Amino acid sequence: MNNMCTATYRLHDDRADFRKKAESIAVGMTVGSWTELPQAKREAMQKHLGEVISVDVHEAEGMAPGERYADITIGYPDVNFSRDIPALLVTVFGKISMDGRIKLTKLGFSDGFLSAFPGPKFGLNGVRDLLGVHDRPLLMSIFKSVIGLDADELREQFIRQALGGVDLIKDDEILFENKLTPIEKRVEVCMQAAEQARKETGKKLLYAANLTGPTSRLKQQAERAISAGANALLFNVLSYGYDVLHELSSDPDINVPIMAHPALAGALYPSPHYGISASVLLGQLMRLAGADLVLFPSPYGSVTMPKEENMAITEQLLSPGLPVRTSMPVPSAGIHPGLVPLILRDFGTDVIVNAGGGIHGHPMGTEAGGRAFLQAIEAAQRSIPLAQYAAEHPELKSALDLWGGER
Amino acid sequence: MNNMCTATYRLHDDRADFRKKAESIAVGMTVGSWTELPQAKREAMQKHLGEVISVDVHEAEGMAPGERYADITIGYPDVNFSRDIPALLVTVFGKISMDGRIKLTKLGFSDGFLSAFPGPKFGLNGVRDLLGVHDRPLLMSIFKSVIGLDADELREQFIRQALGGVDLIKDDEILFENKLTPIEKRVEVCMQAAEQARKETGKKLLYAANLTGPTSRLKQQAERAISAGANALLFNVLSYGYDVLHELSSDPDINVPIMAHPALAGALYPSPHYGISASVLLGQLMRLAGADLVLFPSPYGSVTMPKEENMAITEQLLSPGLPVRTSMPVPSAGIHPGLVPLILRDFGTDVIVNAGGGIHGHPMGTEAGGRAFLQAIEAAQRSIPLAQYAAEHPELKSALDLWGGER
Repeated sequence: MNNMCTATYRLHDDRADFRKKAESIAVGMTVGSWTELPQAKREAMQKHLGEVISVDVHEAEGMAPGERYADITIGYPDVNFSRDIPALLVTVFGKISMDGRIKLTKLGFSDGFLSAFPGPKFGLNGVRDLLGVHDRPLLMSIFKSVIGLDADELREQFIRQALGGVDLIKDDEILFENKLTPIEKRVEVCMQAAEQARKETGKKLLYAANLTGPTSRLKQQAERAISAGANALLFNVLSYGYDVLHELSSDPDINVPIMAHPALAGALYPSPHYGISASVLLGQLMRLAGADLVLFPSPYGSVTMPKEENMAITEQLLSPGLPVRTSMPVPSAGIHPGLVPLILRDFGTDVIVNAGGGIHGHPMGTEAGGRAFLQAIEAAQRSIPLAQYAAEHPELKSALDLWGGER
Repeated sequence: MNNMCTATYRLHDDRADFRKKAESIAVGMTVGSWTELPQAKREAMQKHLGEVISVDVHEAEGMAPGERYADITIGYPDVNFSRDIPALLVTVFGKISMDGRIKLTKLGFSDGFLSAFPGPKFGLNGVRDLLGVHDRPLLMSIFKSVIGLDADELREQFIRQALGGVDLIKDDEILFENKLTPIEKRVEVCMQAAEQARKETGKKLLYAANLTGPTSRLKQQAERAISAGANALLFNVLSYGYDVLHELSSDPDINVPIMAHPALAGALYPSPHYGISASVLLGQLMRLAGADLVLFPSPYGSVTMPKEENMAITEQLLSPGLPVRTSMPVPSAGIHPGLVPLILRDFGTDVIVNAGGGIHGHPMGTEAGGRAFLQAIEAAQRSIPLAQYAAEHPELKSALDLWGGER
């Protein structure tokens, strides 16, 4: 499909003629009307006309009300819209998002459209290169309860995480610009702590500082953070729009990886009838817009997303079908060391094991929390049962005693 | 509530202890933990702690599964977040949007938070002042099927709408920057046509040109459009984020009304279990961010929204509780002259009657389509039954014959 982008929708309707509905979308969202057009006009408009690519109706006798649905794919000629994500989304889901039970489940990008998107600047491999770690899952820890902390308290929390041997540390996404720990101060203090920890651990570390505030000042804020030493950024993409991420990630001056947080995504993906699938929101669009790392709710913890949706996101982040770098998947929330073998089974090696409470809540302290995870990763990669490995690794043993093993 | 913003959620759960859930939100989305904190630390953190303001559980014996719910209001101290909409949304609905069946149904703004928002630059009265019309609903028409049209065809369609006597004409929201009719050319051609029509009708007219393209260039694009003569702008707010609207609307150089289009809103509001209510999305946030006019799906037409949601949006757009100008409600889609008495009954005089097909599809042509609406407005305001008024007004009669009267 080299001159049109496609959108696939799931429509629920007990009676609709889905083929007719598909045709009305293809015409209504492009040239507006067709059958009324005079022949000469039709020829001129042909290149603008949407195309029904497929209509798969799922129905069976005796289906309960509300269960009948169809998956419909429509092609939208590139010539109709500009090469940016707002234009694509308004074209394929602007008006029809409001037209009954319809959910956007997949996008297809034409080569022309893709040409405007350099994608992630580092991507999965670039992040690994920065850290010098290529043979195992990465380990990330999240600042916990940082609202109201001053710079000294932040430094103290940072260094305990860093000494535990994590590869990445991220800000809490609800930490905004504030007087106690403005971004430059925060970065300065944390990067000093990182350097201090490195002398003990010998490990590199990325710290993702949260980029917040007015849209027009984000670039400047990112540059200030980078000048202060930031080597990664965290960004609440959905509260700003994908185009803002796209502009930041494709800016040559912003030369550090960007981590996309899924905040607000739950307003869009969980309903079977409405919204936008997680694999589009947190998979296709995040990668296209240039996120190097993408967080999403893991299938294991308290805030959960079904495993098949996790897999669908990951497939999009890693798919060779997109001619841009791959993005690193970061299943998050509710992660403790006992889950590591499951994470590796489900995601393989190219994943970030990301924990907050599972590190800070370790009975022997935050530092031991990091170590317990590294031990679990080591064991899982060597196919050693965690319980066995724990016999000689007290931090892992303590974690398993508290949180249990694989569920 | 002068030092905290509030958020109200509807949670569906058959078994949850909603009071406990409310407390976990209030703590989890602010200071992170509380019961574990030592007393001295608690004193320091008190000002950051979220507050459970109310928990209203709706349950009854014999309720069907899935029906039990609670409305929960939480207060979030201003000190925790910066004064911008992304920060507010991430604070109140970032992570918890992904935590089960939860919908954001209302926001409450503190005085401090509000102080960062000048609101609509013109608002309902300012738009009326620009047009010199204060005593009746305004009439707007929408370009139809403009993709693929060149500047001459656009001018032709514009002038037919203008000659019909409409007060406002808006671009199609799916018309992006394109070679045939780039925004400056479009504005120039349309404003010339407006001037030409004015000589016949004696009426002023606002033309809302669609602002599209990369986020960082929207301001410049708006200024180019304004230099070319644009006297209003259309903006697909949800594809860019509320903060972008806020920055545009509060920019002193963008001195024309901004019309907010609801494209993509249907991905967020229709589910009873997830997302964000239409009254928050298209009511509270659009007005706060500075939209002078706000479109939303009417309860009358093909793409519909329940009437109570229309009323809830309108209440937020017009509420005297917000210390900024009011925004003009524009119920849209499926509007024909026969519906005008209903629109006036439901919305009163401060509303825009907005039609596309109901104008362009008039049997006597687009110009007659505009006149039929003006006749219907005249009749409805004088409490004359449309059928009676139509006896002496052929355009109205023809419209009623085709589309019928009130439903």
